[in-house]
Amino acid sequence: MTDRERAVRDLVIANRIIANERVVDAYGHVSVRHPGKADRYLLSRSRSPELVGLGDIMEFDLAGNPIGGDGRPAYLERFIHGAIYEARPDIHAVVHSHAEAVLPFSIATTPLRPVIHAASFIGAHLPVWDIRDSFGDTNLLVMNMAQGRDLARCLGRDSVALMRGHGFAAAGRSIAEVVRIAVYMPRNAQVLMDAMRLGQVKDLSRGEIAAHSAMEPNSPAMWRAWEYWAMRAGCGAAVRDRTTPRAKTPRKR
Amino acid sequence: MTDRERAVRDLVIANRIIANERVVDAYGHVSVRHPGKADRYLLSRSRSPELVGLGDIMEFDLAGNPIGGDGRPAYLERFIHGAIYEARPDIHAVVHSHAEAVLPFSIATTPLRPVIHAASFIGAHLPVWDIRDSFGDTNLLVMNMAQGRDLARCLGRDSVALMRGHGFAAAGRSIAEVVRIAVYMPRNAQVLMDAMRLGQVKDLSRGEIAAHSAMEPNSPAMWRAWEYWAMRAGCGAAVRDRTTPRAKTPRKR
Amino acid sequence: MTDRERAVRDLVIANRIIANERVVDAYGHVSVRHPGKADRYLLSRSRSPELVGLGDIMEFDLAGNPIGGDGRPAYLERFIHGAIYEARPDIHAVVHSHAEAVLPFSIATTPLRPVIHAASFIGAHLPVWDIRDSFGDTNLLVMNMAQGRDLARCLGRDSVALMRGHGFAAAGRSIAEVVRIAVYMPRNAQVLMDAMRLGQVKDLSRGEIAAHSAMEPNSPAMWRAWEYWAMRAGCGAAVRDRTTPRAKTPRKR
Amino acid sequence: MTDRERAVRDLVIANRIIANERVVDAYGHVSVRHPGKADRYLLSRSRSPELVGLGDIMEFDLAGNPIGGDGRPAYLERFIHGAIYEARPDIHAVVHSHAEAVLPFSIATTPLRPVIHAASFIGAHLPVWDIRDSFGDTNLLVMNMAQGRDLARCLGRDSVALMRGHGFAAAGRSIAEVVRIAVYMPRNAQVLMDAMRLGQVKDLSRGEIAAHSAMEPNSPAMWRAWEYWAMRAGCGAAVRDRTTPRAKTPRKR
Repeated sequence: MTDRERAVRDLVIANRIIANERVVDAYGHVSVRHPGKADRYLLSRSRSPELVGLGDIMEFDLAGNPIGGDGRPAYLERFIHGAIYEARPDIHAVVHSHAEAVLPFSIATTPLRPVIHAASFIGAHLPVWDIRDSFGDTNLLVMNMAQGRDLARCLGRDSVALMRGHGFAAAGRSIAEVVRIAVYMPRNAQVLMDAMRLGQVKDLSRGEIAAHSAMEPNSPAMWRAWEYWAMRAGCGAAVRDRTTPRAKTPRKR
Repeated sequence: MTDRERAVRDLVIANRIIANERVVDAYGHVSVRHPGKADRYLLSRSRSPELVGLGDIMEFDLAGNPIGGDGRPAYLERFIHGAIYEARPDIHAVVHSHAEAVLPFSIATTPLRPVIHAASFIGAHLPVWDIRDSFGDTNLLVMNMAQGRDLARCLGRDSVALMRGHGFAAAGRSIAEVVRIAVYMPRNAQVLMDAMRLGQVKDLSRGEIAAHSAMEPNSPAMWRAWEYWAMRAGCGAAVRDRTTPRAKTPRKR
Repeated sequence: MTDRERAVRDLVIANRIIANERVVDAYGHVSVRHPGKADRYLLSRSRSPELVGLGDIMEFDLAGNPIGGDGRPAYLERFIHGAIYEARPDIHAVVHSHAEAVLPFSIATTPLRPVIHAASFIGAHLPVWDIRDSFGDTNLLVMNMAQGRDLARCLGRDSVALMRGHGFAAAGRSIAEVVRIAVYMPRNAQVLMDAMRLGQVKDLSRGEIAAHSAMEPNSPAMWRAWEYWAMRAGCGAAVRDRTTPRAKTPRKR
Repeated sequence: MTDRERAVRDLVIANRIIANERVVDAYGHVSVRHPGKADRYLLSRSRSPELVGLGDIMEFDLAGNPIGGDGRPAYLERFIHGAIYEARPDIHAVVHSHAEAVLPFSIATTPLRPVIHAASFIGAHLPVWDIRDSFGDTNLLVMNMAQGRDLARCLGRDSVALMRGHGFAAAGRSIAEVVRIAVYMPRNAQVLMDAMRLGQVKDLSRGEIAAHSAMEPNSPAMWRAWEYWAMRAGCGAAVRDRTTPRAKTPRKR
């Protein structure tokens, strides 16, 4: 199995995980930078993450052009991914999500920040990007590189940018890290919303956020979550024998 | 497959989708205008949407009379559908739902409006219809054409009317559009309720709502959601080969 | 099939429904008055409602003594049922539940009342019974007839009594009616809690509550909900052919 | 079957229950004191509770050292367990959880306390432990005995200590009791949060908490919940014939 095949397999698992954990629904997507070619990234064709299989993965250059004459419909908002990879050589995976628990913080005045240790990975600062500031009235979608670069500029050196009335973009050093950020974003948001009803809130300190983020990303504790989420999403075989995700009929819930 | 057969098949899928996405439970319904006869509509016999199959679909004239001597029990509130089709030639599908996240806005003084881009399809203005205003104390159900027409009048040129203490009626140019509206109505309501606890709320602008609503209804991005919801509802085969929904034993959750 | 057999079968279905709809968990129970002997009622042995089968149903006199020397462990709180049947000849089925959305109204000062038409069956007035008023510090359980009768007195002519810090007791004219009340109690409570955050709340009027309650309990619209809930709870066969519920391994969720 | 085998079997069931009831996700754990050796405890290797099987259980001394040269990765936070067993001879089982409904009370100023009878087992007083008080900026994890003992000191004679921005540690006299505490902790927290929006809250009295806690831990009413939760978690066979939990592929939800 080549590095690219391994990246494709993990990308399919990541799609299934974020769908199964309700980070995305019909919309939202996850990409990974090409493991051998830093100026390319891998991303599904326009398909709901829960349904994505190995054959759905396409390859793009950073400007969002499909490689190899692949003419299948692509996500309209793929420019989020390319623009972040372009601006951030340290980033190797990106998630875009509309998770509902996060959305209130994108439209109201209270800033979102990590208050539980499991979400310290989201970082101490979460900028809010409003597409209207630079582009006026749009359909809110990031549909070209100018919009993608504006979002990437707002993200800066942080890990997550909220997108007003729309969702968030999360950037990780690995696909496991970005999945982890994406899963804990909504939970941290829910805890903060609830805590605000109960009086003064005690935030994580800067030192605590830094200490937790310094944890070894490939430790057994980190692997444990990937294994768990993948098993729940029906990708257990792929996790165990490290081969290809089983073709899977959609789960009923 | 005739246009009518295709309409019936999609109507069954729509029933399963709105049940599976928890827009309706034992109650609530979805109809489609007859594709060949503008003065008729298709709607299930009195049955919970999750259980509706091809054989359950009945045909009605706009006044709610069943066609062809079909004597099976019909929904008591079918007049919602006929009255909207009568008043709005542009409308081809209608959903009536009691979704809980929407209900608070039907009985309290804060107006519901779209605050997330995925719900911009619901339109900038959502009137609240109170059956008590014209009909006094009733059981709140829309049980005749006079009540249906009063509701349609309140709806006017908008896409959704809230019904006080009862639910909402949504009107779409296609069945895919009305399902989309119905699925995102409760989510937008939940986000707005939560955001109001977090300070001043930034609404979608009129221009943003118009821009998003202008999106191509048959684009891959729109089809993606229909495919996803149908697969989750157990109608994958019907979506893939475009034939008949499989007979399906009710899902366990 | 005798009347008693039919009552037992429907009682098993009711157990499965209220478990599947999350009205009860490991605790809570549903009973039905014996169809031929008004001074007896049918109730499961001490078992979680989701797991109750035909062989688990016991028969009790109104004082809570098992009939026929049945020595299996009975619910500690069966006195709730007997005391209500004793005081209310019009009542033929009782549910006791700890549903979480209802509990806040049992311990706080805001009165619960119906605000959505689907819950108008709960009635205009819902008394709150506090066991501490008559019995001082207890474990809050209704463990004898004196406590059961005190609760029945508080219930009076109403359909539901909240029990402080504990749950509620609902009384119906039929098992279908009491299941319906039990399912919509938590939903109405959730809508009211949410609406209170959105400004002034418009209640159902007395006339509306009366009009809705007057609906025919055996109409197709009522049967529709029973069929739907039973199918979802895995009792479809019993509903269709009106025979015995299938033995069923517990559902995974 | 030896006492140790029985303890291991019940520990596996407990892992599955707390995962299935959403008390834990990829993280969190449950342990039991060794039935024959009071200075040892049993705990899974570093694995998500939903996936834990008989072969995953390891044995530790109270300082957290694995017995018998077992070199598999252990939970980083196992010191929570050993420190509590060391300080509390009456305690035979411990759960550590990050349940979201509880977390707001760990970071805000409102004290958590039992308000529903089903949670009276959590006790009248719930201390909040802040690791920062004694150890400054950390990653919030309990990674050595000094931290574990500081937490155990804060717990004192109580049953549950909240951990600021992190979760809680619950201590029980038996594995059934600690599972019960863990399951009802989040529900009680949710009810209290909701009740606070509805006006003045009526707490359980000290006498009520004491009366409920005095209930027989091996009564049919207690066993009923263990049976129910185990059946729902797919461990029905183990509960019925009291042998080994079936190997189980992870449930889809």
